[in-house]
Amino acid sequence: MKLNERGMLIVLSGPSGVGKGTVRRALFEKRGNKLDYSVSMTTRPMRPGEKEGVDYYFVTKEEFEKRIKENKFLEYASFIGNYYGTPLDKIEEKIAQGKEVVLEIEVNGALQVKEKVKDAVMIFLVPPSKEDLFKRLRSRGTEPEDVIEKRVKKASDEFKMAYYYDYIVVNDDVDNAADRIMAIIRAEHAKTMRSIYKYKKLMEED
Amino acid sequence: MKLNERGMLIVLSGPSGVGKGTVRRALFEKRGNKLDYSVSMTTRPMRPGEKEGVDYYFVTKEEFEKRIKENKFLEYASFIGNYYGTPLDKIEEKIAQGKEVVLEIEVNGALQVKEKVKDAVMIFLVPPSKEDLFKRLRSRGTEPEDVIEKRVKKASDEFKMAYYYDYIVVNDDVDNAADRIMAIIRAEHAKTMRSIYKYKKLMEED
Repeated sequence: MKLNERGMLIVLSGPSGVGKGTVRRALFEKRGNKLDYSVSMTTRPMRPGEKEGVDYYFVTKEEFEKRIKENKFLEYASFIGNYYGTPLDKIEEKIAQGKEVVLEIEVNGALQVKEKVKDAVMIFLVPPSKEDLFKRLRSRGTEPEDVIEKRVKKASDEFKMAYYYDYIVVNDDVDNAADRIMAIIRAEHAKTMRSIYKYKKLMEED
Repeated sequence: MKLNERGMLIVLSGPSGVGKGTVRRALFEKRGNKLDYSVSMTTRPMRPGEKEGVDYYFVTKEEFEKRIKENKFLEYASFIGNYYGTPLDKIEEKIAQGKEVVLEIEVNGALQVKEKVKDAVMIFLVPPSKEDLFKRLRSRGTEPEDVIEKRVKKASDEFKMAYYYDYIVVNDDVDNAADRIMAIIRAEHAKTMRSIYKYKKLMEED
């Protein structure tokens, strides 16, 4: 029996290159169709293997800035000359329907979401060590050296932001990390603050 | 990799007759030797099938009151002429060793623990409905009618105490309830407030 019928907004963030996308995909494979992924919008070029509407919605800079003015983002940020943002439409609607909506976003954007959605579940994904992350960033090989160095610098700063999150999940192994996030989602559903209203109703029915 | 090396105190409570003991035993079967159960002390007579040091430590009223004066309880309460209490010794020690210590206690005692151990994980076990619980209490059959009626009255009052807990877990099925508690324990280990110190150390090591 579910005490919490409302869905929830799950914010999956962490330093650049920690493997947010990989963990998110593993999570979706395990958790199935209960989870809903909010696809971000970006102005950065599509990378090999990426798909429109799956990895990102790819739009022009002009289109993105028009949407900012129209207040159509839950959060947005620019990074190395490109915009990244979370379209507002449908997120609230999905949560009201009882869905768990996952946002996989950069640290700065995540903090904007926390300000707007007080009961968002904030998860900070971290590498087993700093060195592990820097190695990963340097071996990615799809970007020029100066972009990689900027990411390393950015990741170093982002490590300090863990304080602002509810949970810290170590990405030592993709499967383990996804399992930990599943446990977090399950536990959050049992949180008193999320279920007290339905509980009261149930206990008054008899 | 574990970010939280410290154990935790898990308080499993709920209205009389909800099945705290059954769920606790199912939890221990699943979770194995990582969990440590804090055996309570009582002055009530041993019931058929109960074992000294397993279900309770059974002591005399005089012995119990001596221990109260010596400040040897984390919490204690009296109910229908008998004392029930949680011996202090060893709990802190076990938590420091990284163990998860489970207390299965009555609602009033649980609230005393919350006051003393700020980061205790407070779980309130509830029946699928009030009627379900009352039926269960009445069919227990090991106690005289007037004691059962006192329990029904007590349970009705205890329902209102859910507000003071971190989590509400429905005991619709013993296995499900134990699984939910396992998810809660796992999620609590990932809580930022529990792991931030070790995380900081890790990130400074490189």
